[in-house]
Amino acid sequence: EGGRRMSALEEGTLHKVQYYETDQMGVVHHSNYIRWFEEARAEWMEAVGLPYARLEAEGIASPVLSVACAYRRPVRYGEIARIRVRLTAYNGVKLSVAYRVEDAATGQERAAGESTHAFLDSKTGMPLRLRRACPELDEILQVQIERDREPEKNAE
Amino acid sequence: EGGRRMSALEEGTLHKVQYYETDQMGVVHHSNYIRWFEEARAEWMEAVGLPYARLEAEGIASPVLSVACAYRRPVRYGEIARIRVRLTAYNGVKLSVAYRVEDAATGQERAAGESTHAFLDSKTGMPLRLRRACPELDEILQVQIERDREPEKNAE
Amino acid sequence: EGGRRMSALEEGTLHKVQYYETDQMGVVHHSNYIRWFEEARAEWMEAVGLPYARLEAEGIASPVLSVACAYRRPVRYGEIARIRVRLTAYNGVKLSVAYRVEDAATGQERAAGESTHAFLDSKTGMPLRLRRACPELDEILQVQIERDREPEKNAE
Amino acid sequence: EGGRRMSALEEGTLHKVQYYETDQMGVVHHSNYIRWFEEARAEWMEAVGLPYARLEAEGIASPVLSVACAYRRPVRYGEIARIRVRLTAYNGVKLSVAYRVEDAATGQERAAGESTHAFLDSKTGMPLRLRRACPELDEILQVQIERDREPEKNAE
Repeated sequence: EGGRRMSALEEGTLHKVQYYETDQMGVVHHSNYIRWFEEARAEWMEAVGLPYARLEAEGIASPVLSVACAYRRPVRYGEIARIRVRLTAYNGVKLSVAYRVEDAATGQERAAGESTHAFLDSKTGMPLRLRRACPELDEILQVQIERDREPEKNAE
Repeated sequence: EGGRRMSALEEGTLHKVQYYETDQMGVVHHSNYIRWFEEARAEWMEAVGLPYARLEAEGIASPVLSVACAYRRPVRYGEIARIRVRLTAYNGVKLSVAYRVEDAATGQERAAGESTHAFLDSKTGMPLRLRRACPELDEILQVQIERDREPEKNAE
Repeated sequence: EGGRRMSALEEGTLHKVQYYETDQMGVVHHSNYIRWFEEARAEWMEAVGLPYARLEAEGIASPVLSVACAYRRPVRYGEIARIRVRLTAYNGVKLSVAYRVEDAATGQERAAGESTHAFLDSKTGMPLRLRRACPELDEILQVQIERDREPEKNAE
Repeated sequence: EGGRRMSALEEGTLHKVQYYETDQMGVVHHSNYIRWFEEARAEWMEAVGLPYARLEAEGIASPVLSVACAYRRPVRYGEIARIRVRLTAYNGVKLSVAYRVEDAATGQERAAGESTHAFLDSKTGMPLRLRRACPELDEILQVQIERDREPEKNAE
């Protein structure tokens, strides 16, 4: 269990490119990277013990407020992408996540992106403070944001 | 209003091919035709005065029971597809629909398909008899199935 | 290698349901099953040693001639689908494949489908006899179609 | 012709929300906005007389370098979105485009985004200077960027 968690947090999500994800330029259509970010986010939440399906079941929705992606090199059919996830900001009501898409075989960067998210009451649509609505997730995010900041600290 | 209805029922739905619908074979990916069928069905329901969004709002869901498509010639980026809809069976609880995908410019057939649909209570998930649940739609389907059968009768 | 091949051929392809695959009915949108068929087909070809990317690189395209799917029970977010592939017909120029979509956790059937495929010269678009164009794939298909028929024979 | 061009440039692209674009949150999945941007861009190019399909036919590819979207309010099934396009930068080798997604019925803003694009030789993949590769498009972009800047000038 701990091993799997490590794996998912440290090694990111592997995504095998599907034919239906390509376009007639012969590469993965750029809109799919936004879907891969979601896939990697979901994998991350599962790894920390809080699958998004469970969050929804508890009446919490987490809509995307913004998304951005910079495309460096195309990803092609026959390749496996690795999507790495890193928390960049969390203040109790809003979360920012950064992504790095790599070729799994070589580690070469293919794209980088970020997204921001709110937490809402599924019924009322009103913003939630996670510390009250889901203290378990709040704590996980607090701990993780510290860890994800560490590489930067060490780099100083 | 009647004019628009005529147009939608007689002339089908026009769909401009999008770049994101192509794949690296340089044609529209086959899964998108299934989506175009849905698009044409929705357009049809709007044309007869019963938008699917309204049906859902009244607590009726209409899941797809089956779908099939035969691909004759590829559809390409830069083309506009016309999707024609024809009812082929309706017995009060189940509906069958046939589709013909054409090149709008030439009328050339590109694909043909069909789908079948049930009507369910959105809350309970239990099958509904439309005559009770939505007599308006039941009558529309009864009338339309007669009309759509006529070409076959005339052909006899 | 043999182990992996066994696994892919006997146990099918696992597909974790993605949030972007759901629709507002709260289930996986029916068009995605057609994409899962393709995903399972690609996995199958990889398992027998002939990834579709390699086929394309050798100048062979394999367009979908037809597809069909019968939806038994919805697949939901949070679930993992298993897609089983079985060859049902092959005559040297055309291939038929059957699919069974199950809930990976329980083995419960969720959908069943089939597709047919041709083999074309990528440049000319002309049909190919696989025995000449790619004897390796021809033999694999010949062997596999015999195996996939066996359960039926044994059932007699 | 001039009328249609006016319409497309001034009034943006209308996109009827499709059921397959919704997710189980009951709104359009955020990845689809990125596809709508592409749709509106293509419509824009057609309006200025240079359909993207023709550009590709002339051996020019225009890959997406980056994309971003800020989601203000959800778009729902049953609605029609209007996507407005505005050029924000063009230097002969790179183009920046801004988007505003509105509810067509009320004009209410739903999302805003931008994308940047390069121009490449389809065969070599090398960057192109549009003034040489396609002087017609270069001039159109030069003229349009002036026009799109005017509102800002007037606002000063």
